[in-house]
Amino acid sequence: MKNLNIVPFVSVDQMMKIVLEVGIEPLLKDMAAYIEADFKRWEIFDKSPRVAAHSIDGVIELMPTSDGEAYGFKYVNGHPSNTKSGRQTVTAFGVLADVATGYPVLLSEMTLLTALRTAATSAMAARHLAPSGAHIMAMIGNGAQSEFQALAFRAICGVDTLRLYDIDVEATQKCTRNLADYGFKIIRCATAQEAVEGAEIITTVTADKQYATILTDNMVGTGVHINAIGGDCPGKTELHRDILLRSDIFVEFPEQTRIEGEIQQLDADHPVTELWQVITGKVKGRTSPRQITLFDSVGFAVEDFSALRYIRDQLRPGNHTELDMLADPDTPKDLFGMLLRAQP
Amino acid sequence: MKNLNIVPFVSVDQMMKIVLEVGIEPLLKDMAAYIEADFKRWEIFDKSPRVAAHSIDGVIELMPTSDGEAYGFKYVNGHPSNTKSGRQTVTAFGVLADVATGYPVLLSEMTLLTALRTAATSAMAARHLAPSGAHIMAMIGNGAQSEFQALAFRAICGVDTLRLYDIDVEATQKCTRNLADYGFKIIRCATAQEAVEGAEIITTVTADKQYATILTDNMVGTGVHINAIGGDCPGKTELHRDILLRSDIFVEFPEQTRIEGEIQQLDADHPVTELWQVITGKVKGRTSPRQITLFDSVGFAVEDFSALRYIRDQLRPGNHTELDMLADPDTPKDLFGMLLRAQP
Repeated sequence: MKNLNIVPFVSVDQMMKIVLEVGIEPLLKDMAAYIEADFKRWEIFDKSPRVAAHSIDGVIELMPTSDGEAYGFKYVNGHPSNTKSGRQTVTAFGVLADVATGYPVLLSEMTLLTALRTAATSAMAARHLAPSGAHIMAMIGNGAQSEFQALAFRAICGVDTLRLYDIDVEATQKCTRNLADYGFKIIRCATAQEAVEGAEIITTVTADKQYATILTDNMVGTGVHINAIGGDCPGKTELHRDILLRSDIFVEFPEQTRIEGEIQQLDADHPVTELWQVITGKVKGRTSPRQITLFDSVGFAVEDFSALRYIRDQLRPGNHTELDMLADPDTPKDLFGMLLRAQP
Repeated sequence: MKNLNIVPFVSVDQMMKIVLEVGIEPLLKDMAAYIEADFKRWEIFDKSPRVAAHSIDGVIELMPTSDGEAYGFKYVNGHPSNTKSGRQTVTAFGVLADVATGYPVLLSEMTLLTALRTAATSAMAARHLAPSGAHIMAMIGNGAQSEFQALAFRAICGVDTLRLYDIDVEATQKCTRNLADYGFKIIRCATAQEAVEGAEIITTVTADKQYATILTDNMVGTGVHINAIGGDCPGKTELHRDILLRSDIFVEFPEQTRIEGEIQQLDADHPVTELWQVITGKVKGRTSPRQITLFDSVGFAVEDFSALRYIRDQLRPGNHTELDMLADPDTPKDLFGMLLRAQP
């Protein structure tokens, strides 16, 4: 019963060390298994749309969830103009806690962890939805999330060929350079149209906060799987509406996706399938090689919960910091006495 | 533009040092001024009831708010059976962030800080509501919050006499012992009835999670101010309903208090006054020496926000820890490159 005051903390530096020690591809694979396990027990989770505080410059959100034994939440911001001042558009941290006592058991950076869990979720979904044997992926948007997506699709789906496009040529160069040692065949494309040619999986992961049309209807052939990551808040979409109408659409949590995802362009009763139902086998995912499947991903609290669970299970002496975060008086009723006894 | 990765962290130990360095009474007085300033600009705050995750053993809550420039939230649990395992019933931590960038600017323990802000809020409210010249306070419930209440009422309202009662005699002994050097006249009472005799202010601050009746109607004479702290969640009240019917009731945020406060015993349209309206002078507080005023306090996010603002203004080199909590890649789009370059 000692050290009740301590909460383990994983800093950015420690997170990088954990990732490099496990290896990024094994980690993405393991984390996808944690996420898949939580999607399998989707119904037991306490789910609610995120709690958002909007301002002119961006949004700050809290994303809580619980499986009845553990409770997790993520703090995450989205501020598109942050890059002007050298800051990240998105930063995040999160906490895992014990439901029985309410005591936090992990505080972790989640900027890197969110990039990892987003990629692991995308690839896990694609394993259930993409055409079998798919190994060529177009990736439109080559920013901060792109390399994580590429490696997750390699580790989890066997993707070995990348067709890259970004309106910012430097982003594509950076992505190519960062992935140079991972054995992909990489084709840098001059247009989004060129990138999707021959691709079996199309990942859209751009960052513009507006209604954009990264893909038009004529660009998308039959049989592909679309992994739509970038459209993730009200007013921000990437796909032309006509593509959505031709696709079978899979989502995380409809209540949230209808507000934030590509399907904000559709009627509120447009049919969508919840991904967890495919994963548990309740509903079929891909039913024909000509079908267009679309994972309209916005990111959901359960995925962060799975990622925090994974990191908690990686805690070893030396790979995290012990934070004196909880008051632990000698007797619980004597909080003031603890203060008195701290007097020099 | 350096150290964008750093978030200042105030641990429990560092919080105790800040409190002892400033001095507990001056700190309570200063913090009450921050809280009062925020009540004065109540209307600009983004207010919503807390987001609660209930379980058999207790509750975990997130309490966010924002004034448009800063954003704050508190994580707090309430687990009455925690004391059996030597844990605190309530622990808390919180974050203050910059609305313009979404970047956190402070992470702080809030178990001690919540005790301080609760006491400061009570005394600040009493300064507006208690009979003038009141200096005798009954305090029913002598647990973890009691000494903080006593000292806040001394620093802010001039209370010099305490009439103490708790069903647990040891709690009263502990409270008496802890306050021995602060110059109060302390009367230990055998019953709640005895404690309220002659008191001008009655503070109820018990912890039982049930409908309790700490005060019955016959015990409360005209002209007193009741500071009701303990009734703060659904199913937990301290006062007999008849007392409420004889009192003018002041609350923090009616939407929350009607669910959690003493007034959960009353009709949903029973008239109450919002404390901020008294503080801004929009509405009169006490209007006669015979009136019973009742502050039905449940604790609101704005008070935590004020407390975090206060602590941020106390940050000096050496009184906090710099946490590497935010990813800060050389170029914002190159999160993966940051990971690559961390390779040994």
